[in-house]
Amino acid sequence: MAVKVPSDIEIAQQAKMKPIGDIAKEWGILDEELEMYGKYKAKINPSIFNRLKDRPDGKLILVTAINPTPAGEGKSTTTVGLGQALNKIGKRTVIALREPSLGPVFGVKGGAAGGGYAQVVPMEDINLHFTGDMHAITTAHNLLSAAIDNHIHHGNALRIDPRQIVWKRVLDMNDRALREVIVGLGGKANGYVRQDGFMITVASEVMAILCLAADLMDLKARLSRMVVAYNEDGQPVTCGDLKVQGAMATVLKDAIKPNLVQTLENTPALIHGGPFANIAHGCNSIMATKLGLKLGEYLVTEAGFGADLGAEKFLDIKCRYGGLKPSAVVIVATIRALKMHGGVKKGELGQENLEALEKGFANLAKQVENVRKFGLPAMVAVNRFVSDTPAEIELLLKKCNEFGVEAALNEVWAKGGEGGVEMAEKLVKLVENSTPNYRPLYDVEASIPQKVETIVKEIYGGDGVVFSSKALKEIKRLEELGLDKLPICMAKTQYSLSDDPNLLGAPKGFEIHVKEVRVSAGAGFIVCLTGEIMIMPGLPKVPSAEIIDIDENGVITGLF
Amino acid sequence: MAVKVPSDIEIAQQAKMKPIGDIAKEWGILDEELEMYGKYKAKINPSIFNRLKDRPDGKLILVTAINPTPAGEGKSTTTVGLGQALNKIGKRTVIALREPSLGPVFGVKGGAAGGGYAQVVPMEDINLHFTGDMHAITTAHNLLSAAIDNHIHHGNALRIDPRQIVWKRVLDMNDRALREVIVGLGGKANGYVRQDGFMITVASEVMAILCLAADLMDLKARLSRMVVAYNEDGQPVTCGDLKVQGAMATVLKDAIKPNLVQTLENTPALIHGGPFANIAHGCNSIMATKLGLKLGEYLVTEAGFGADLGAEKFLDIKCRYGGLKPSAVVIVATIRALKMHGGVKKGELGQENLEALEKGFANLAKQVENVRKFGLPAMVAVNRFVSDTPAEIELLLKKCNEFGVEAALNEVWAKGGEGGVEMAEKLVKLVENSTPNYRPLYDVEASIPQKVETIVKEIYGGDGVVFSSKALKEIKRLEELGLDKLPICMAKTQYSLSDDPNLLGAPKGFEIHVKEVRVSAGAGFIVCLTGEIMIMPGLPKVPSAEIIDIDENGVITGLF
Repeated sequence: MAVKVPSDIEIAQQAKMKPIGDIAKEWGILDEELEMYGKYKAKINPSIFNRLKDRPDGKLILVTAINPTPAGEGKSTTTVGLGQALNKIGKRTVIALREPSLGPVFGVKGGAAGGGYAQVVPMEDINLHFTGDMHAITTAHNLLSAAIDNHIHHGNALRIDPRQIVWKRVLDMNDRALREVIVGLGGKANGYVRQDGFMITVASEVMAILCLAADLMDLKARLSRMVVAYNEDGQPVTCGDLKVQGAMATVLKDAIKPNLVQTLENTPALIHGGPFANIAHGCNSIMATKLGLKLGEYLVTEAGFGADLGAEKFLDIKCRYGGLKPSAVVIVATIRALKMHGGVKKGELGQENLEALEKGFANLAKQVENVRKFGLPAMVAVNRFVSDTPAEIELLLKKCNEFGVEAALNEVWAKGGEGGVEMAEKLVKLVENSTPNYRPLYDVEASIPQKVETIVKEIYGGDGVVFSSKALKEIKRLEELGLDKLPICMAKTQYSLSDDPNLLGAPKGFEIHVKEVRVSAGAGFIVCLTGEIMIMPGLPKVPSAEIIDIDENGVITGLF
Repeated sequence: MAVKVPSDIEIAQQAKMKPIGDIAKEWGILDEELEMYGKYKAKINPSIFNRLKDRPDGKLILVTAINPTPAGEGKSTTTVGLGQALNKIGKRTVIALREPSLGPVFGVKGGAAGGGYAQVVPMEDINLHFTGDMHAITTAHNLLSAAIDNHIHHGNALRIDPRQIVWKRVLDMNDRALREVIVGLGGKANGYVRQDGFMITVASEVMAILCLAADLMDLKARLSRMVVAYNEDGQPVTCGDLKVQGAMATVLKDAIKPNLVQTLENTPALIHGGPFANIAHGCNSIMATKLGLKLGEYLVTEAGFGADLGAEKFLDIKCRYGGLKPSAVVIVATIRALKMHGGVKKGELGQENLEALEKGFANLAKQVENVRKFGLPAMVAVNRFVSDTPAEIELLLKKCNEFGVEAALNEVWAKGGEGGVEMAEKLVKLVENSTPNYRPLYDVEASIPQKVETIVKEIYGGDGVVFSSKALKEIKRLEELGLDKLPICMAKTQYSLSDDPNLLGAPKGFEIHVKEVRVSAGAGFIVCLTGEIMIMPGLPKVPSAEIIDIDENGVITGLF
């Protein structure tokens, strides 16, 4: 096991990439459907959907995880490695991932492009501007912000209540000083003074819409429905009322096209869209996912955070809007993380602890059980670490077996696709031997409290849900406005099945506290917040921005 | 003359573009030097400079203009049309233009890509995100902004005086509400409260640096020298002190590569960089200009505003830093605009007025005289309008002849390159028959007041310069810091040779009032402001954003 793996950026820089045009050709994408961004990135024109409309879809595989811990699980790495491994065993497989945000690259860590020998490349470009999608979203979002203040400045015909503007501004930057600002200072020429704030771009509803839109016209219709403020009568004012949805869609005309790159083993990777996994649904775009299903026998994708948030939203929001029917769900776990769920502190993970592993297994078991509630077969993918002992591995496999779930060890981080062959073979067998019967968890026509209660009881294992008076007031408003018949997007801690990050494993006897309810009427979901969600990160004392550098040959250092 | 010309966007959408790879090939750019952005845009890798270093440079032609008037002059259109016309008469010619800012596209008018049959294409892409350069500059700029507040938040080891932070934030958006803001509200976690403001991205010093940098390492060195604040002792705090120049250069690694597109007649167009023409020098990048000189027998480029600002800065700042030696300067004028300089109101331009034309000619004559002070031959290009009468045309040509300057009429807007053949032929004759002897106007080693006085007396025709006490104080500080031995960047009205926009023609007996002096130590010039400069535009009552739209086939309407 003593494999010496170089750093991610070193591996990425040594990758033998194929020209992306060659990959596209191998996977049946026509030259006229490809828009190059340099030699190793391309956008795919949505005209491909019409050409391939009669081709049967491949199998949709979701990779999700136990509740994350500081020990690390490696969900993106497993997604990439599983795609590589499936190709290795002869199953033509495409992967679909979220695109990383640029702001956090300057903070603590780099993007989300996998790791070790299971990465997507060109890693630096993907983590920097990529094909400009984030910038297009920033621009479209802030155009609407400017239109709001401009409308008020020029007479406020819509009677927007400046105290009830819910549309903030965005920037793809970790910048705490912009969290709460006052704008419009400096006198009459600069508009009206009011309080405002900036979010990081991925928190924008425009990002969620880009990921849920069926096509450009659906995107425009969704943009138009976004609620940006309330007027003096308490009625919603939408983007459509401000008439800028056409300009916003124009700004997003290229951003809506899925991006094609490759993994270290030349597996095609569609990296497109990356909404927050708390106040939004945390999945890559429906368009990229559907495209991957047309191109491959298998399409492997992932969703943000653990299965309680990511898989639930993937299945209740993304699959519902996209008409997607998954074939199986892979749940990533590590022995280290399960031991943390069993009570071990991070510093003591190096020691064998069978008791903690057995206890922590409850978290994994609950996620498997949850997946099955959506009518889908599940399997467990265990990312191997050097510190895992033979006894621990044996125990975990035994527990999975007893629970009736297939499990496979994998070493894709250290060995690439080769390290995931067993996992891939077991997955293929699972898919070929089961009859998935996907169904969403709840009926969208139910009331907001009913829908939330279903999620809390069925998925989190809680006793019930308590709404704050503020939340109840907003639910009443949404019911009156007829905006309540939408799927639920829970914004709670990713570290626990409950809303308390300290309750690890599979807690029982708790309630979920919904403090605030908001509608994302364009994206098409109701956000239920159980606490403060950080929508604009800050930089640490010594940010990565002080370490990142580029030399005269264009070689970048300091990107992780 | 009754040519019916469709709208710019209609002409652009009907253009017969060649794949940009074909254009590159025809002009000797190797495949490995080309980075495609779709089929009709590409970036050119700076590695080309090394390959072509022994190839002799082409002739550098600057297109400038009389002081602009509401009648319109058509400088960009003439630049594009002249490039097309030179190719038509067998002179291999490349053009180099500034790239337009996205923000203003949502306001009153579209970008600066020429007009009629003298446009660069793809027009919509150039006016929207193009190849992402503006977004990269926005990101690099705001990274430094975030680093300043982050540094203060984490203990302020550099002892930055929060009252003396001169580095604002930027956004590529017309958004008056962001002109003056308060940031850092919301308590301890969000940093310290202070006043700040946003500029539009093109006003960023990062943009000026991108346009003046010799290469990526020079870019990084210039970024490092930028003054962002002063400390409690009044000493400058630079970007280098905050150690983010490496990350900023990394963010700008692609933005520094010149962009290649084409005109409607397939003339190669390098569109790269677009700094403000008041607080910055208003020229496209030195790298693009130098590249064009290697690729063509002729390189035609332009500079912002009239010759008193644009040409002066091109010759005193850009050519000085770039080691460029122009061969000739073309000064664009229209009979309509000259009549306005002679006192005619905009509504009365349709009537023949020989007296006003004769009087307004003084502005053109002064610009010709100024160009010659730099040791360069000048010619006049008259953009024809339907309203020009034969007597007016005859008078203007006679006046030019008497003044000893070659003049040519052109109809490139209505007829493309064909409409500029006479102009191109006269230009070639001028270049072939003259011995240019370019020299900058002043010695950078002179004091700031001496340099400004030289510009005011020699170029503007004024009697002298008056500095405010605030300006004098800043000059003293810059002298003490050794930052005064840099070229001057005048920020004054573009409408007059004086600092009073109402003084048209060639005024005499005026003084220039410098109210404020700032150093752009990274770009490498001293900005002298004669009044308020709008660095963040607003949107009008009915912005273009309400008209711009895109249909299901991706066809855009409402971009002008």
